[in-house]
Amino acid sequence: MSTHAPDIVVRRLPLYLRALTLLADRGQEIISSRELGRRVGVSAAQLRKDLSLFGEFGRQGLGYEVVYLRDQIRRILQVDRIWHVALIGAGALGHALVNYPTFTRWDFFINTVFDNDPAKIGTIIGGLTVRSMDRLGKTLQAQHIEIAILAVPADVAQQVADDLVEAGIKALLNYAPISLVLPDDVHVSHIDPVASLQAVTYYL
Amino acid sequence: MSTHAPDIVVRRLPLYLRALTLLADRGQEIISSRELGRRVGVSAAQLRKDLSLFGEFGRQGLGYEVVYLRDQIRRILQVDRIWHVALIGAGALGHALVNYPTFTRWDFFINTVFDNDPAKIGTIIGGLTVRSMDRLGKTLQAQHIEIAILAVPADVAQQVADDLVEAGIKALLNYAPISLVLPDDVHVSHIDPVASLQAVTYYL
Repeated sequence: MSTHAPDIVVRRLPLYLRALTLLADRGQEIISSRELGRRVGVSAAQLRKDLSLFGEFGRQGLGYEVVYLRDQIRRILQVDRIWHVALIGAGALGHALVNYPTFTRWDFFINTVFDNDPAKIGTIIGGLTVRSMDRLGKTLQAQHIEIAILAVPADVAQQVADDLVEAGIKALLNYAPISLVLPDDVHVSHIDPVASLQAVTYYL
Repeated sequence: MSTHAPDIVVRRLPLYLRALTLLADRGQEIISSRELGRRVGVSAAQLRKDLSLFGEFGRQGLGYEVVYLRDQIRRILQVDRIWHVALIGAGALGHALVNYPTFTRWDFFINTVFDNDPAKIGTIIGGLTVRSMDRLGKTLQAQHIEIAILAVPADVAQQVADDLVEAGIKALLNYAPISLVLPDDVHVSHIDPVASLQAVTYYL
């Protein structure tokens, strides 16, 4: 695809995919835009508009074929394949992530772990030997890894992210509570539990 | 406030707050809507529109006073106080969360941990004794806790969420990879690292 859909639409596609996968697993064959939208928390009109950016997937008045739309979204998101992922940071969060079964269930495989703490380098977590950050560039390039999960403290996150970019990483899942400044062709998703909590205290 | 702003706007307020807090810590006194928007990834017009839902915070042509706007957003989000939080699930993720310093830095204090695994009940994580889920209702009510973090496996998450709602919880941070079905007055933020990864593979 030569042009990209708006980021906010791209971020909704995984939610549509999640809902469609659940429906397909239950054997449901057809779903209306209203019902699929309801499951994701968007209007039927928004759902149709989002999907229309990528092609024609539904038939007027008939709704969407669940399995077909699921597979099309998998293709659009490029998750109809396995991705290998590097984990940076072997602390408490890194331990939880490397053992998180949902990544592998969705074909994201953490297959290399780095840390800069001499006490952690050489130890094994989730079946993987923790490597020194000194080996970052060579290892990632040798393994053709384009995705990294950043689970390091905030005060070193920007430096580590810079190193990752230099090593060829093009997509980052950032758990550090800072906004990273990176080149435009590097795409970042930010996991920010404090911001998520602050968005619900509003309603209390 | 009798009416609520749209959820999507509420979810941007913590990002504005994060940026303003950083600017205030650096001693910056004034910021334009363009520059603040840039730091959060929204247009100046969107920023002004978002904030206008909550009051008049800027002066035409003069921008926003950083400390004043920070404090107003803290008040709007109700994070100008300490919140006590219950953690449900003492597994690898629970361990990481109970030791996550960013929660306390932003005045969210996990002060009780529950699990249903007899091998975990009575053990201590992050300085807290893991309690039996049987004690959930009594403990949360006695401690007037309204916020819980759900770090349990997907197959039990809905049941645990139902128990939490019965115990008076009104806000949930859900780490389980399922969509919870809950009463309208219970507000949920969802941490979904797989969806976050799937949103960046689109660009690779």
